[in-house]
Parts: sequence; structure tokens; C-alpha cells
Amino acid sequence: MTALPFPFPVVTWDDQEIVLMDQTLLPEQLVWRRCGDINSLCLAICELAVRGAPAIGVAAGFGLALSWRLAMSHETDTQAMMVRFLADRQQLAETRPTAVNLFWALDRVGAVAEQLLADGSSADHIATALLIEAQAVLDEDVAMCRAMGMHGQELLPDFSTVLTHCNAGGLATGGYGTAVGVIFAAKESGKTISVFADETRPLLQGARLTAWELHNQGIEVTVLCDSAAATLLQQGKIDAVITGADRIAANGDAANKIGTYPLAVMAHRHDVPFYVAAPRSTFDGASSSGKDIAIELRDPVEVHEFHGGRATPDGVNAWNPAFDVTPNDLITAIITEEGVVRPPYSENLAKVWGGK
Amino acid sequence: MTALPFPFPVVTWDDQEIVLMDQTLLPEQLVWRRCGDINSLCLAICELAVRGAPAIGVAAGFGLALSWRLAMSHETDTQAMMVRFLADRQQLAETRPTAVNLFWALDRVGAVAEQLLADGSSADHIATALLIEAQAVLDEDVAMCRAMGMHGQELLPDFSTVLTHCNAGGLATGGYGTAVGVIFAAKESGKTISVFADETRPLLQGARLTAWELHNQGIEVTVLCDSAAATLLQQGKIDAVITGADRIAANGDAANKIGTYPLAVMAHRHDVPFYVAAPRSTFDGASSSGKDIAIELRDPVEVHEFHGGRATPDGVNAWNPAFDVTPNDLITAIITEEGVVRPPYSENLAKVWGGK
Repeated sequence: MTALPFPFPVVTWDDQEIVLMDQTLLPEQLVWRRCGDINSLCLAICELAVRGAPAIGVAAGFGLALSWRLAMSHETDTQAMMVRFLADRQQLAETRPTAVNLFWALDRVGAVAEQLLADGSSADHIATALLIEAQAVLDEDVAMCRAMGMHGQELLPDFSTVLTHCNAGGLATGGYGTAVGVIFAAKESGKTISVFADETRPLLQGARLTAWELHNQGIEVTVLCDSAAATLLQQGKIDAVITGADRIAANGDAANKIGTYPLAVMAHRHDVPFYVAAPRSTFDGASSSGKDIAIELRDPVEVHEFHGGRATPDGVNAWNPAFDVTPNDLITAIITEEGVVRPPYSENLAKVWGGK
Repeated sequence: MTALPFPFPVVTWDDQEIVLMDQTLLPEQLVWRRCGDINSLCLAICELAVRGAPAIGVAAGFGLALSWRLAMSHETDTQAMMVRFLADRQQLAETRPTAVNLFWALDRVGAVAEQLLADGSSADHIATALLIEAQAVLDEDVAMCRAMGMHGQELLPDFSTVLTHCNAGGLATGGYGTAVGVIFAAKESGKTISVFADETRPLLQGARLTAWELHNQGIEVTVLCDSAAATLLQQGKIDAVITGADRIAANGDAANKIGTYPLAVMAHRHDVPFYVAAPRSTFDGASSSGKDIAIELRDPVEVHEFHGGRATPDGVNAWNPAFDVTPNDLITAIITEEGVVRPPYSENLAKVWGGK
């Protein structure tokens, strides 16, 4: 496998097109998917060619920059361009209704267009400004992940073995990653880290994506079934567990991919530190504890089928919760872009994130 | 789905042939695989058309009965028949080198032939005696599982919800099952039980086999990813966890399919009883504790691939332990054919099993 540039070019702008690393074909094939219009970009988002909330946000930002340029080729008047632009923005917003970074990026980049239009700026000037703003969404994501990584890697001694779950990696973000970014940062700091990656049923993001990106960057990685992680911890083979988070409550309870909670319990039982790496956008101060976090139930077909094959008999039910909640007392520390936060979380998370 | 007779006809003798429920095609198809010679039976065992140590033992027993009848059609002299018989026995013994019940059944049924030959019995008489002995291996397995089930079902209140892992069911035995047999026995006692079945990566015996056999017998079953079981227990949806065991040490530590140990930890954390259902043949008095039980590492390809598709990138390792060990302090009770055994296990297991 040829090592890619790092941070990974998960979403980039190239010659009036958006270029995506097509994640539906990984790990078997690395295909660069070029989107020269909004329909093809929306399709790529819907098909999960780009996935992970931060990565979707970056793609949507570039999508608005693309939209304006296309509008310029069809219209001569900036007001008419804006009509097309807003229709495209609406179409992008409807691709993944729950990905919060999508709306945030559309609002941020969209606001630039609206402000400049109100100021009477030229179409060319707006086009340039939108591309600068979209690029900033990407660059800031990378910078934030890099900061998180540099703080987090201090927790990992040289020659550590780390266990992770799902894909909180470069592929889910602008290219650097959150939990996996900590491992990349340790490598950049000259440390040798080896990784065990839970395969992460039902969609196997660990086996398919985390293993791929670590291997691509020359980091030794071993995949295991989710249920084997307990034995790995029992045998003393793991120095630290690091996962991402989808939402963190005010008290530090953390929702993440299903299977994270039992991993935290097993790490605690075997005295292995359990770290969560997550940026401020993950923090939900409105949820006082994990009890306030609703658990999304996903389509049972993800459990029934895999790679086109049917695993379960017809007529049998499947239960497919997407996330679980790890109570704060099982979390050794939360790695943020502002630094490593330790308990008591209610107090210490409010200090780094609450005031912003 | 048409309900089959119960106990399931996993391995039966019919008109000079051995009939197997082909488990490689379940749950998609139920095919009756007829073996009229030893080569086809050995192939069926190697291909896992029949699997589970007790079921393999039953198949091997009938295999010897078949072998003798075939030898009679080729030879006129009982000594010459015995030469063929011993060659077939050796071939059967080489199908699955670690399944202890295979050797036990070959020894038991083989000894009948050797004794009768020494006594000068007729070929016809030996043929009849071998079939009777093979049928006894099956009938005793069913009786033992039924006894285990009847003892175990007393632990399950009416309208209980039970979580199980892997397939310790009728399909793995002579047709009744150990852990799943307890659920069948509860149903036979008039109770309504609903079941959650862990899919059980990597080979999905829970999704494919346990779900199939429970559904076939009209018991409500829901499949879930192994990593979701912790959330199910956390949410208070489970009244009891029941698994089988592959080996039980003198102190009650139990080796079973990978993923059993974290399930026991999670059950303990959420105050749900954790039961192991296993017959005397599982007891290994020579292992003083789980530390003496070697954990078999299986082919990494089981993790790399599924349903013909590749999940992991080339060049990545996979770690695939087949079993884990649950320490005795996490086991609420061990359900045996002699009754329900509670701690202290060193003392109480020796009482029911040790003297035999």
C-alpha cells in the first residue's frame, strides 16, 4: 500500500471540483471520486462515500463554494445566482438530517455569501470568499484534531499498545482524526505505537477504515472481533483504550458507537486507562447526564445482512442500537483540543468548553 | 417456517443411511444431507454440516454402524469386515482432531464390535448391536440435555427474557441443546420465554443457528451484535443470561465461545444472574482453574472475511481467539444433568461430577 499524504486528503478542492476519498470502496480500492456538481456531491454524501460528521461538514462547505461558481456560469445577475445557491444549500442540508456539522458548515459558509451579497460584492469576489471560508472549515478541523492529538499523545508512553473502537480517524474528519489522531500525533512525536482495532459490528468501520488508515501510515494494526477485546485486556496486552465520542453530557457521560460502554467496563476491571478524544462540538451542555441522550436505533438490516449475505433466518427480529453511553466514572480522561480534562468532569469540562 | 419435530432430528439413521440437517446451509435452506458411505460422512463432518461436539459424537457412532453394514456387503468373513471397520474408524477419527466427544463415541461403539467379534458373534448380530449402541449415544445425549433443561428451567420465571451467546442448542447436540435446551424445557413446562441471541462473531452461530432453532420452535428471538448486549443489560431488559461451556475447570472457571467473559462481567455489573449449562463431559477436573485452560487461536481469515467478502485491508493482522475464560465468581450457578450447582464450585462440582 502506498502511503498517502498526511493529514489524509479526505475532502479537497481541485480545479473547480470537489475530490473525495470514496470510503464505500475502502479498504479494497482507493478511488478518488470527483464531484463537479451538487447532485453528485449530495449522492456521495448519501451513499457514505464521505462520512463522519466533521468530514461531511467540510464537504458541505466546499459544496457551497462549488454551487456559487456553477451559478455564475448560468446567470449574469448575483441575485439570480443567490437563488440557485440557496436551492443547492437546501439540497445539501437534506442529505443527512442528523449530522450536526453539516448544518453548522452550511450556516457558516452560507452566511459569507449572504453578507457579501448584501454588501454589493461582485460575483467573483463572493466566489473567492466562499472558497476561502470552505478551506478554513477544513484547515480548522485539521488544526483542532492536531491539537487534540498533541495533548493526547502525552498520555501514551513510547512502545505503547492502544485499543480503539470504530473509526474516529482521519477518514471521519478533515484528515487527521480524533481518537486515531492521538495515535498519529504520537507517531509524529517519534513514538512507536501498535494498535488493536475492534472490527466494530455491524458496519465494520474498525476493520475497514481504522485498520486501513493506520496501515497506510505505517502503524502496526491488528483487527479483532469486538467480543475478543475483553480477553485482550484480561491478558494485559493493552496500555490504553482510546475512543471518540458522538456526544458528551455536562457530567462527562459519553455517547459513542455501540460497544464502547462494555470496553470501558472491561478496561476499568483490568486497570487500563480509558480515554475519550473529542472536540468541543461534541459537548452537549444541555444534557446533564447520559440519561438525557437518546440512543438512535438503526435499521435492523445492518445486523441481518453483511456483504450481500443474509446471516439471520427470515422472521427473526434484530435490535440495532447505534450508540451506547459510558458513565463518567469509567473515563480516565477526556482529550480535548484545549488539553486533557480529568474528573470531576462537571466542573472541568465547563472550564474548557462551557464558557464558549 | 414449518416447525420440525423436537428434539430436532440433527443426526438420524434412515434406511441404511445417516441423515444430517446440513448446518452449512442454515438459515437460508434446510437441506437433509444423506450419507450412505464413510467418505461422504467424513466430508460432512469436515465441512461442518454437522458441528458441536455432542452432535459429532452421535454422527460418528452411526458412522461405525454404517461402516459395518458396508463391510458386510464387501466381505464374507467377519475378520475381513473388521479390517474395513477399523480403517473407517481411523478415517472418522481424523475428521476433527480436537472434538473430544468424537473419540469417546468411536471408542464406545467400536468396543462393542471388538467385544462381539472376540465372542464369535455373527456379522448380523454385530450389525444390530452397533446400531443399538449408536442409537443409545443419541438417546442418552437427548436424555441428558432434557434433564439439564428441566433442572435449569426452574431458574426462569414465566415471561422471562433470556440472553444467550453462540449456539449451545439442539443443533450442536443430539437435538435438544444445553443452554438453549433450558429455554426449550421452560417452553415445555408451559412458560413463555423470549430470547435475545448474540450474533456471535466471527462465525455468527447465534445469528444463523440459535435464532433459527428458536424461531423454528415458535420462541420469540431477537438477534443483536455482540457489542450491544451490554446496553441491553444496562437497560434492565434481561432476566437471565445462559450460555454453554466448552470446558469447566475444577474451581468452576468456564471456557466458552469468545465473548462470554465480557457478557458475564456485564451481567454481574447489572445484577442479572449468569448461568452456565453444561454436562459432565465438559468438566475437566485436571484443570484446577481457568489458568490451566489453553485458549485456541483460530485462523485470522474468519475475522478478515465474511460471506465471501473481505472486511480488512491486505497487510493487516487479525487476532482470533476462539474461547475466553469466565472466572467462577461471575457465575451464579452451573446447570448440570444432575441438578443446579451453586458456589463454592470446587466443593459442589466435585460432588456431582468428580466421583464419576
